[in-house]
Amino acid sequence: MRTIKSRFHDYTVEGCGSSTTALAAVVSDRRPHVLIDQSVHDLLEPEVRATLPTDRLVVLKATETAKSYAALEPVFLDLLGRGLRRNGVLVVVGGGVLQDVGCFIASVLARGLRWELVPTTLLAQADSCIGSKSSINIGPYKNQLGTFYPPHRILLAADFLRTLPFDEVRSGLGEVIKLQLLTSQEGFSELMNDLDGWHAVSHQDQLSLLAKWVGRSLDVKQPFVERDEFDVGPRLLLNYGHTFGHAFESVTDFGIPHGIAVMLGMLTATFVSARLGLVDEHHAADLAHRLDAWHAPYADLLAGVGMRALFAALARDKKNTAAGLTCILTRGFGRMERTALTVDQVETCVAPALADLISCRFKL
Amino acid sequence: MRTIKSRFHDYTVEGCGSSTTALAAVVSDRRPHVLIDQSVHDLLEPEVRATLPTDRLVVLKATETAKSYAALEPVFLDLLGRGLRRNGVLVVVGGGVLQDVGCFIASVLARGLRWELVPTTLLAQADSCIGSKSSINIGPYKNQLGTFYPPHRILLAADFLRTLPFDEVRSGLGEVIKLQLLTSQEGFSELMNDLDGWHAVSHQDQLSLLAKWVGRSLDVKQPFVERDEFDVGPRLLLNYGHTFGHAFESVTDFGIPHGIAVMLGMLTATFVSARLGLVDEHHAADLAHRLDAWHAPYADLLAGVGMRALFAALARDKKNTAAGLTCILTRGFGRMERTALTVDQVETCVAPALADLISCRFKL
Repeated sequence: MRTIKSRFHDYTVEGCGSSTTALAAVVSDRRPHVLIDQSVHDLLEPEVRATLPTDRLVVLKATETAKSYAALEPVFLDLLGRGLRRNGVLVVVGGGVLQDVGCFIASVLARGLRWELVPTTLLAQADSCIGSKSSINIGPYKNQLGTFYPPHRILLAADFLRTLPFDEVRSGLGEVIKLQLLTSQEGFSELMNDLDGWHAVSHQDQLSLLAKWVGRSLDVKQPFVERDEFDVGPRLLLNYGHTFGHAFESVTDFGIPHGIAVMLGMLTATFVSARLGLVDEHHAADLAHRLDAWHAPYADLLAGVGMRALFAALARDKKNTAAGLTCILTRGFGRMERTALTVDQVETCVAPALADLISCRFKL
Repeated sequence: MRTIKSRFHDYTVEGCGSSTTALAAVVSDRRPHVLIDQSVHDLLEPEVRATLPTDRLVVLKATETAKSYAALEPVFLDLLGRGLRRNGVLVVVGGGVLQDVGCFIASVLARGLRWELVPTTLLAQADSCIGSKSSINIGPYKNQLGTFYPPHRILLAADFLRTLPFDEVRSGLGEVIKLQLLTSQEGFSELMNDLDGWHAVSHQDQLSLLAKWVGRSLDVKQPFVERDEFDVGPRLLLNYGHTFGHAFESVTDFGIPHGIAVMLGMLTATFVSARLGLVDEHHAADLAHRLDAWHAPYADLLAGVGMRALFAALARDKKNTAAGLTCILTRGFGRMERTALTVDQVETCVAPALADLISCRFKL
């Protein structure tokens, strides 16, 4: 069991043998209200019916519109109507969207109530479940609202991942790879070696491999979120790959899964770093080579996208100010740094790196 | 200047010579977005136009419906449309409703942005401005949503109070009196002696007197909110008078101003305490005598209200659980305690105290 320090309350991450154990654990103490992802609910219907209190169960479709300010009002009212109050407990079962919705509701209902999280995707288990963040859309503004408010308890079970489509696994791996790149060459190499064997091992061994890297990912992320929970200093390095990644998602109308867009974003940031002389060109080329199988063929979606649209998307990013482009660059494994690029640097380094990505997918 | 510790960020309370100085101070550093109470805006229009950036000014009517979840969406969109983003500053000018709306927006926009508060009512200056809380309504549920998120800076100017109706002054005094009751007989006596001279002194001297008791109130409240910002322990004592006060507000459809309802609530809690033998009956009678002029004639509004309706309102209070009634009782000045009353105690002590209040306004 892992304990994570927070300004709000320390919280635990506990490994469970199976999804059934995890669901049983959250209802063992009291009768919680439960917010569950529609597809998880449908996949595990017998387990859900056997363990969760059906009169306090709210089933939600995990779509982008579900996490908008307006769409949350009926969910609040549903939970209040079912009697959820300040002394209650909210259990959230699902991936990123459910976590955003559940975290926002738990942080704002009665100024913060106890909530427990059962993440069911690789992205949520290996990355987003710790760190306290929620992101909510409002009107045309994506992820502009949100809160910091960690769950009181997180329960991990690898077998939730057994039905995950390969693209969702790869999307989660995007953040897993990012976290290893933030540490050391050894961590990254061990991960990529493990992944090289992916298609040769049994489904059960794949799940064990994911469980291993979920733990290793949380090892890396934990000190960042403990030191800088409110994301104003060192934690910003976790945005490695995200400035460009968000633009790739936006410009393809979210046709690229988040973690895969982050992989492409990390590659872009690394090639920009190489052009600026921060890192060797071979480091960038080698990274492109190692990641190719894990993001293909999504880079192709960018082939039809003009530079103009890409820069417009970058300008819309909430992290960019009028002054220029802020992103995380790299000097090599474990040596990322937050950099504000000048207009000149954007023209001489970012534009060519993006052009390379669009045209021929990073060969140097 | 006072500095208050918070889990989020320490913040300051600064005295300003005048409303003009306060408004000028908040725009001196950067160009903030401003959320201002309609009536303050109209009263101070020349000052507002001279100091605040009109293209970033959002004027809001301070009604109960303005602080509902649904009504906040257009305010969020208006501020976002005017360019407010994570690096921006939100200045809030107004009383309780504006503070609730402003605090909620500042805490949720970009997961928390810098905000500064210029409170313009006695209640906001002497009590609610510190302590980080916002309360928001949703559908039929009053104050069930909210956040903890203090402003980064609070600017106090007594002359905002010069146009305050007498009932708003008395409403603020309800919380001022509560805070002195929480300290000592000396504090309470000094306050009531000052107030005894209220009608005999000049308007300017009344403002000076209010400024003095604003400071003294914050002296009392500060250690409570620093020790227990998230309101789970000692800070709950600040709810003295609120369990019954909320019921009085609700049952008269908010015909009793908040702080005056709190005065009546404190009296009820004191008479309940006397019936339980926690405090001398004379203490209760003396308190009733001292407060009479400051709440009259609002107790009369309760004359037509049945006990049934009062108990229904008490049952709706978010602090009461199915088990019974939780309220703050007193053993005398500075000796309040949180008590869960049994059904039996409610029948033998609370019901008669409420009947006394309804019928003859607390004479023993």
